[in-house]
Amino acid sequence: MDIQAMFKEIEEEFQTVVEWRRHLHQHPELSFQEQNTAAFITDKLTSFGLEVRTGIGGYGIVAVLKGGEEGKRIALRADFDALPIADEKEVPYKSRYDGVMHACGHDGHTAALLGTAKVLSRYRDQLKGTIHFIFQPAEELPPGGAKAMIEEGILDEVDAVFAIHLATDVPVGKIAVGAGYQMAAVDKFDIVIHGKGGHGARPHEAIDSIVIGSELVGALQKIVSRRINPLQAGVVTVGQFHAGSAFNVIADTARLEGTVRSFDEGVRDLIEEEIRSIVDGIVSGAHASYSIDYLRGYPALFNHKEATEETRRLLAESFGEDAMMEMEPSMGAEDFAYFLKEKPGTYFKVGARNEHESTQYPHHHPKFDFDEQALLIMQKAFIEIVRGYALLENEGE
Amino acid sequence: MDIQAMFKEIEEEFQTVVEWRRHLHQHPELSFQEQNTAAFITDKLTSFGLEVRTGIGGYGIVAVLKGGEEGKRIALRADFDALPIADEKEVPYKSRYDGVMHACGHDGHTAALLGTAKVLSRYRDQLKGTIHFIFQPAEELPPGGAKAMIEEGILDEVDAVFAIHLATDVPVGKIAVGAGYQMAAVDKFDIVIHGKGGHGARPHEAIDSIVIGSELVGALQKIVSRRINPLQAGVVTVGQFHAGSAFNVIADTARLEGTVRSFDEGVRDLIEEEIRSIVDGIVSGAHASYSIDYLRGYPALFNHKEATEETRRLLAESFGEDAMMEMEPSMGAEDFAYFLKEKPGTYFKVGARNEHESTQYPHHHPKFDFDEQALLIMQKAFIEIVRGYALLENEGE
Amino acid sequence: MDIQAMFKEIEEEFQTVVEWRRHLHQHPELSFQEQNTAAFITDKLTSFGLEVRTGIGGYGIVAVLKGGEEGKRIALRADFDALPIADEKEVPYKSRYDGVMHACGHDGHTAALLGTAKVLSRYRDQLKGTIHFIFQPAEELPPGGAKAMIEEGILDEVDAVFAIHLATDVPVGKIAVGAGYQMAAVDKFDIVIHGKGGHGARPHEAIDSIVIGSELVGALQKIVSRRINPLQAGVVTVGQFHAGSAFNVIADTARLEGTVRSFDEGVRDLIEEEIRSIVDGIVSGAHASYSIDYLRGYPALFNHKEATEETRRLLAESFGEDAMMEMEPSMGAEDFAYFLKEKPGTYFKVGARNEHESTQYPHHHPKFDFDEQALLIMQKAFIEIVRGYALLENEGE
Amino acid sequence: MDIQAMFKEIEEEFQTVVEWRRHLHQHPELSFQEQNTAAFITDKLTSFGLEVRTGIGGYGIVAVLKGGEEGKRIALRADFDALPIADEKEVPYKSRYDGVMHACGHDGHTAALLGTAKVLSRYRDQLKGTIHFIFQPAEELPPGGAKAMIEEGILDEVDAVFAIHLATDVPVGKIAVGAGYQMAAVDKFDIVIHGKGGHGARPHEAIDSIVIGSELVGALQKIVSRRINPLQAGVVTVGQFHAGSAFNVIADTARLEGTVRSFDEGVRDLIEEEIRSIVDGIVSGAHASYSIDYLRGYPALFNHKEATEETRRLLAESFGEDAMMEMEPSMGAEDFAYFLKEKPGTYFKVGARNEHESTQYPHHHPKFDFDEQALLIMQKAFIEIVRGYALLENEGE
Repeated sequence: MDIQAMFKEIEEEFQTVVEWRRHLHQHPELSFQEQNTAAFITDKLTSFGLEVRTGIGGYGIVAVLKGGEEGKRIALRADFDALPIADEKEVPYKSRYDGVMHACGHDGHTAALLGTAKVLSRYRDQLKGTIHFIFQPAEELPPGGAKAMIEEGILDEVDAVFAIHLATDVPVGKIAVGAGYQMAAVDKFDIVIHGKGGHGARPHEAIDSIVIGSELVGALQKIVSRRINPLQAGVVTVGQFHAGSAFNVIADTARLEGTVRSFDEGVRDLIEEEIRSIVDGIVSGAHASYSIDYLRGYPALFNHKEATEETRRLLAESFGEDAMMEMEPSMGAEDFAYFLKEKPGTYFKVGARNEHESTQYPHHHPKFDFDEQALLIMQKAFIEIVRGYALLENEGE
Repeated sequence: MDIQAMFKEIEEEFQTVVEWRRHLHQHPELSFQEQNTAAFITDKLTSFGLEVRTGIGGYGIVAVLKGGEEGKRIALRADFDALPIADEKEVPYKSRYDGVMHACGHDGHTAALLGTAKVLSRYRDQLKGTIHFIFQPAEELPPGGAKAMIEEGILDEVDAVFAIHLATDVPVGKIAVGAGYQMAAVDKFDIVIHGKGGHGARPHEAIDSIVIGSELVGALQKIVSRRINPLQAGVVTVGQFHAGSAFNVIADTARLEGTVRSFDEGVRDLIEEEIRSIVDGIVSGAHASYSIDYLRGYPALFNHKEATEETRRLLAESFGEDAMMEMEPSMGAEDFAYFLKEKPGTYFKVGARNEHESTQYPHHHPKFDFDEQALLIMQKAFIEIVRGYALLENEGE
Repeated sequence: MDIQAMFKEIEEEFQTVVEWRRHLHQHPELSFQEQNTAAFITDKLTSFGLEVRTGIGGYGIVAVLKGGEEGKRIALRADFDALPIADEKEVPYKSRYDGVMHACGHDGHTAALLGTAKVLSRYRDQLKGTIHFIFQPAEELPPGGAKAMIEEGILDEVDAVFAIHLATDVPVGKIAVGAGYQMAAVDKFDIVIHGKGGHGARPHEAIDSIVIGSELVGALQKIVSRRINPLQAGVVTVGQFHAGSAFNVIADTARLEGTVRSFDEGVRDLIEEEIRSIVDGIVSGAHASYSIDYLRGYPALFNHKEATEETRRLLAESFGEDAMMEMEPSMGAEDFAYFLKEKPGTYFKVGARNEHESTQYPHHHPKFDFDEQALLIMQKAFIEIVRGYALLENEGE
Repeated sequence: MDIQAMFKEIEEEFQTVVEWRRHLHQHPELSFQEQNTAAFITDKLTSFGLEVRTGIGGYGIVAVLKGGEEGKRIALRADFDALPIADEKEVPYKSRYDGVMHACGHDGHTAALLGTAKVLSRYRDQLKGTIHFIFQPAEELPPGGAKAMIEEGILDEVDAVFAIHLATDVPVGKIAVGAGYQMAAVDKFDIVIHGKGGHGARPHEAIDSIVIGSELVGALQKIVSRRINPLQAGVVTVGQFHAGSAFNVIADTARLEGTVRSFDEGVRDLIEEEIRSIVDGIVSGAHASYSIDYLRGYPALFNHKEATEETRRLLAESFGEDAMMEMEPSMGAEDFAYFLKEKPGTYFKVGARNEHESTQYPHHHPKFDFDEQALLIMQKAFIEIVRGYALLENEGE
């Protein structure tokens, strides 16, 4: 196939993709509530002449493009939910909904994958294999949208999976790729300590849940400092500590909520076990009782070595070696991890920061925005992957 | 004077005093808001023919009874504010106001001192000295009503001060008296730790105020365990710990509020100094900042030895040695302490618990009630003190 | 009897008693090793014509003086062991033994009781009752000498017990007396934490006993700050913390030794239970194991109210009201407590500090010394007690 | 040159190299005391006809082999000190010196580099460049032998540096190579807390250094758990905690010694700063004083990317791709790090464990031993590096 022709078409469609992105940006929807966004995506995909399946594990959508010949079957995935953040930008495409905003770039992911589907759908005959365009809801809120879609079998007919995240911590024009663990597993714990309330002047008649909770916070630090291999990553953060309703009354109940991050499953298991063991020891020793609610969230995202190296090679061919960066692992989470537990593939970042102040904000910031040139690069990167995975007849080569 | 005649009159007036008490119980008013209660008291005192001064330091009232001859000048004090507690009793005299209740017996104190004033006012001629009937608002809420009244000079013409608390932890018929420190000084602290918020997965970019606050709670325990003489009493209670608003966000601010109790002024000073020193050390060492708001509340209540022994002797004469108990010090607070810092005197307890379940509840309990026989005993006890302090011509003796 | 005559004899014998005291001071013997001291005492007692029983519960000695008539039977007790302290005084009667010293005044106690016995033995006929002169070894080292002597029955024929401690924190001429708890119960704990050693660079392969031990020290503070009634006294001190043998090796074992002080038996029990509970909770929660060796030492010393008040009255008659001080409770320990658990009686202090620097040192100091006038006062105080307990025919009165 | 001929010679000399290794094993010498070992090495090097320089930075030795033509100048390094460990093996070549043992394989390193030098010295004419055989003392004991040798200029004429460690955690026949940080920087801290001693029963008169030290140990955990990027490695271990000399005396002084490990210099600086800040905050807040002695030991060992990849490529050619393993970073330390801070190069591991129990023990174990086939492989690996770095005329190729 003629990849240059495809790249040219993508450039010609740029304004359309930008419009889509801005439409989505103006109409953000929270995780698990993306009804209109799903309808918008479905409408577009249908208009490209693709076979579209909707309502998968919620608002999930898959469009399949079967090539002229059989071959590898790959999935390209975009997520499309927004965040409970109030848009503070002053731009014409600012969010129209109070307190809801595309502050992580999912609008861009969706627009770019739609654009990719539109162009690719014109080259069906030259395809040797099948492309699954996966549009996933609810990436921001565990249990997330990925798991439910996968459970409905969307990967059964897929050989490899790919996703791109646009990134304002990467300059536009750069692409960051890396094998191995790249995003952390994320868990949530909720510990409630039940002591015994009492008058602040008579501590001996009470069981002080604040003292116990404070001892716990200190002891939990020792998991990372002493129990985990220093060469492996782990985080235990207590994000909330709430106890007591009067300065002179001993609090009967203290509630501690927090998050755990890890890459390795062994480390993940160990942290949970240690939390349970420490809580049990300290609380019991202090004559109090407790409950722990420990929820496993997304697993760690692991980029497969072979698929990652191949992707890097392909992208370097199109964008040049200078465009390539080594991806830096993060303790953040991403539910594309579920896809990579099922199938080989990789998840990488496309730079979206330019010189303007508007693109300097981190993801999840109320002023978050990005350089829309990233939309072009994302589409071209998807096309490169499709080309490389020998899905297209490489006539010209 | 004929004390037996007076006791007889008190018994004859019993139903009136009970009615007064029940009226007050039905119409409780919160500290610093006792407008109607003050009017009720003023009305009664005026009807006894006493010289009444109102609006002292708020709703404070003093009625003075000058005897036929000059002599000792003593003050008898009752407090009259109620608590922000919803009355859960089922009795005809239940509080008529939602969420406000005489749950500490101040209605009884007031009724008993009114009854005492009524009877004593008939014996003016036999008095050798002056009685100051002090009705004080706002005992329950620092800065309290005592301080402001004293600052207006109500003790300038007084030689000794006395107050009685009815008590459901003492059986009716018993009177608990004791010299020395009996109630604690009470202080309040409010510590705010300013760390730096951040993503729960990136602790190194934040300053975790929950970790610092927890370390503080642990370190504060060492004041009582290591810095105070084990033979002196002190309490440091953190009653509230509030920090964080999301499980996966590092809390930038932690707020700890608590109370300090002590008897000795040196201990009181030391605890405040230690809190300040510990907070400064730990917070600074952790690169955070803080503010401390430390408020000194009521001082410790110290019963003067001579006045207490004399009071005990007098009460034992009337009620018998068997009625007398040794008062047990408490870490609770009482703003009559301000009176005893100015003048000699004593504060003691009159038993108010009988066999019925209704009188078994501790003070400040939503079902608190007491045996109204205590009203009789309180009045007689006041009369005994008046007699003993040679205020009355002891004709018969 | 003629108490003034007896006081005069005591004054005449003063130099002898001083010589005895200085002899003992020069020849101190450690607890449970007081062979020569016991022989010296036995020799003197025998020379007074008293019936002497030796070897009681070790080196214990009792001499009994039966009066002409039957009456109350009282015991006067002195202790006679020395301390493992090197004498740093420069006086002619300095200790002749390296590293052993009478640094607590037991030499004075013994000399004074011998002097009392010598004089009293001349007045046997005037006695109405029986005096037991008890010389007890090993007061300084638990389990102490008192317990074993009592178990051999030395109090079976005794109605009341008395002991005096000379004190350099009380001016000579003053006597400090007080009822109730005056000296603390003393316990000893030895906690060994068994973690797992390992390379300092690989904490995850080890169980760090220093981290666990440190957490324990912090948690133990909470017993006094939170579990004990603030109005009751208690102390938990970790006096030794030893762990590790190299800076870069994780310590497999940590040893914590400490002492517990209390007056009330309930508090004593509670502290032991809390230590066990806290240790079990924290150590188990950290996957380590432990042993606790908890030894109960001397009980709290409780001066009986009636005997103390009577003693105070008697001493005030002889020495004047001005000489009397209120004894201040101490968290220190004294095995005379065992005597007071068996029989009524009291333990009090006779002042031994004058203006000279030599008497300013606290007990157990290597330069400890005392004003020998205290020897006279102790003897007179014993005589007063004997008189007061109607042991002597009060002919002159 | 004919590398196969050289390999053959190395195999022929195997018994000699084993004898050297066993001689060294029987005569181990502690760090900075390696007089006889240095003489042994010098003797051999001289016998190979090499130009030998001795006494460099202590017992350091460098032998230089200049090739027939000018070219790259590379250094091969072996270390030769032993450990203060008693040899518990039962073999004929067991250590003859009590408490001193080659328990880390330095005997093997030295024998293998001597063997390499012997063979290479025969091929001087074919060399295009220069080989520096560096024999370094005192690797086990900071400040180590490397630093002093480098300060004397041994790397001034060197372009690249290489060292091999034999390893019983790698199977014989395998070679572990890896770029980047492989061994940690190691620091040592010694914190002395000066409180105020006192009687265990009177905590308020003392400043309890054990309580402060324990609080410190807890607070130090927070450096790793909260201050370091979870994606970077760091260790803070308190290996010794010693305080107090009697169970009932409050310890005036507590001594804490420990080690710090890190890779990144920023992390290293941060840990030291945090230790100082935490100690200052806590100790000052507790009214005590302190001293900190913080010693920077070996830096982190960083294998240069290009040299490592080149080395890996060369070794894979000789030993096959199957022999190659990815080296795993360790928090242990190695003063070859100083060489790699000056010049490009790499440090890698040659497997030395076989099926026999004798080779299963970890380094520094009293029964440590290794498969002597590793000696052959180390020599061949050195030869490969020499060949690859184009030092030899590659005639045959």
